[in-house]
Amino acid sequence: MTPPIQPIFRTGRVVATGLARTTGAALLLTACLSGPTGGPEGRWIDLTHPFDAHTIFWPTEEGFVLERGAGGLTADGYYYEAHRFRSAEHGGTHIDAPIHFGAGRWTVDRIPLSRLHGPAVTVDVSLACDADRDYRVGIEDLREWEAMHGRLPTEAIVLLRTGFGRFWPDRIRYMGTDERGAVAIPKLHFPGLHPEAARWLVEERQIAAVGLDTPSIDYGQSRTFETHRILAAANVPAFENLANLTALPARGFAVVALPMKIRGGSGAPLRIVAIVP
Amino acid sequence: MTPPIQPIFRTGRVVATGLARTTGAALLLTACLSGPTGGPEGRWIDLTHPFDAHTIFWPTEEGFVLERGAGGLTADGYYYEAHRFRSAEHGGTHIDAPIHFGAGRWTVDRIPLSRLHGPAVTVDVSLACDADRDYRVGIEDLREWEAMHGRLPTEAIVLLRTGFGRFWPDRIRYMGTDERGAVAIPKLHFPGLHPEAARWLVEERQIAAVGLDTPSIDYGQSRTFETHRILAAANVPAFENLANLTALPARGFAVVALPMKIRGGSGAPLRIVAIVP
Repeated sequence: MTPPIQPIFRTGRVVATGLARTTGAALLLTACLSGPTGGPEGRWIDLTHPFDAHTIFWPTEEGFVLERGAGGLTADGYYYEAHRFRSAEHGGTHIDAPIHFGAGRWTVDRIPLSRLHGPAVTVDVSLACDADRDYRVGIEDLREWEAMHGRLPTEAIVLLRTGFGRFWPDRIRYMGTDERGAVAIPKLHFPGLHPEAARWLVEERQIAAVGLDTPSIDYGQSRTFETHRILAAANVPAFENLANLTALPARGFAVVALPMKIRGGSGAPLRIVAIVP
Repeated sequence: MTPPIQPIFRTGRVVATGLARTTGAALLLTACLSGPTGGPEGRWIDLTHPFDAHTIFWPTEEGFVLERGAGGLTADGYYYEAHRFRSAEHGGTHIDAPIHFGAGRWTVDRIPLSRLHGPAVTVDVSLACDADRDYRVGIEDLREWEAMHGRLPTEAIVLLRTGFGRFWPDRIRYMGTDERGAVAIPKLHFPGLHPEAARWLVEERQIAAVGLDTPSIDYGQSRTFETHRILAAANVPAFENLANLTALPARGFAVVALPMKIRGGSGAPLRIVAIVP
């Protein structure tokens, strides 16, 4: 595996003064410009699980398939390989476009880039989720975060660290079952975001996007997907099955989340990185 | 369609002093931190064509297929849609991983993030390509760029603007033929990068990656794919079928290029953006 942590900008240094109050942007500056010549070492951290035969999809989906094509020396004496693949939109590290649960809302190709990058925070709810696989992150968790770290930035990308990312790709530990098909649905147990907290993030904090390290932004026992519907109605994308959230600080970093640009897609594979000073 | 140009970081301002010589990084700073409170308006420009039934693939490939699944009101009264898709690795806006033409080189999931972002330049060769569909960008074009704009930054992302992006998705104008299968190969006519120039970029300028607005980094009449092989041997990724290169300045901007993380992939769909102060 590629190590998830990579140094960024390999040269250059800047001294910045006069920073305004946007700590996220200010720290992105540090991350952008630090390097071996001095200053803190900026890191790009990959929050993406790879797509392969073990990638976790919803129990009713087939999953990711790499159809291997050519591979080897050609008659002309040079090496060549190329493959095809197929996948559901909603599996592995992916984005839910608002249209997934919102009629007339953005398809994945229409989500503005401004919703796909920005200052980010990590809300650690792993203790509560360890105690209760069906935990739903509530307004109180978010208020507690603010009490410790200050008010959430406007248009923030909010990442919920449930700790379940450490179970990947063990389906039983990660989502509660390794059965496939509709029979598995009642057996899904993993944490998610409470609908009331989703409404608070959208209405009171005007977040840009929200993500977490479980298969779905609604918890495993949801049958009505209210959190999805609240986010969709507000055109707020969700990032699911995130990796490496344990490598992130509580605040003071940036996220760039770039989905495959599927025209008319309700979701897509997502490559998402954090830039940490 | 989503407008390709989006404002970035919506708040904040910074005054930077003491900039080192890395102009690309320095200008990324401006792009990161400018906003409505003052300073130049930073823009994120999407260099990605969407994937749909018209997306251009190599004539021997099937192309992108969205298999529409559920879509509409459920029995429980809420809206839901979700789809599946299939694709070749090498079509539309995509990345060539070094293993595509280099035995033992990086697969797409192993390309370090440091090769996928950084200071970028645009080399405009559109006049030469208008005059000759089989034009190959040479060392002289690159030296001419340096004479006008200064030496290429080390570990730069070099974008070649052939002008052929404006023909997308008209296959005849873009690649010389709309025929499919092996019979189309001799009829491919579009510009690319000359192998000697590829070697110069790798050995003399230590570039991080190279991209262009045609179907392949080797020109359409290539039968030996020497440019691919030179880049692959040096573990330098190539970005193909880029969009909106006409929106870019010659230098002073940054690129972030995040491919779908296909384990063992020889290439993948790429979402690529430019950050222009």
